[in-house]
Amino acid sequence: MSGLDKLIHQPVRLRIMASLVTLDPTDQVDFTYLRELLDVTDGNLGAHLQKLEAGGYIRVEKTFIARKPRTFIAATPKGRGAYDEHVEALRQILGGADKPASP
Amino acid sequence: MSGLDKLIHQPVRLRIMASLVTLDPTDQVDFTYLRELLDVTDGNLGAHLQKLEAGGYIRVEKTFIARKPRTFIAATPKGRGAYDEHVEALRQILGGADKPASP
Repeated sequence: MSGLDKLIHQPVRLRIMASLVTLDPTDQVDFTYLRELLDVTDGNLGAHLQKLEAGGYIRVEKTFIARKPRTFIAATPKGRGAYDEHVEALRQILGGADKPASP
Repeated sequence: MSGLDKLIHQPVRLRIMASLVTLDPTDQVDFTYLRELLDVTDGNLGAHLQKLEAGGYIRVEKTFIARKPRTFIAATPKGRGAYDEHVEALRQILGGADKPASP
């Protein structure tokens, strides 16, 4: 309904996407950085990232740096498009596009 | 987290509140009007109104007009305040308040 994207609307995922779309398309963020930025647990962040990845909204890349596992995350073009549409739908709702006449 | 109000964040309730806060504080909307505006079922709208009423965000008034039951809904001052805070939190998220530096 109303153009809101359920995958993005959930508060943690909204903040994940809002953070990722500000990056240059070729950049990515580190899992740990995102976890601290959003102040969530490993498990919580991991679960939300999985959902966004399953929807094709983000790309998750696991690698090793100095023998330590690292996870990098970036928004896909599809994710950026979905985020833009979601924000536009939100702005329409908040802007009173549904404004009723007084009864 | 992040100042978002769970009671208001849910899409149908967000649209209910967005519609109600545009009204003059002394005005109210009719249940049927709201149901058609939001394009939801009686049961769905009723359930969301109950949650908002339980939170003290709206006032629900049932009455009879020409022997027919009518339900009128208005935002309370508490609901207006919560909505304003929620919108401010959303704007901070969407505006990139969480913007990360490139890693």
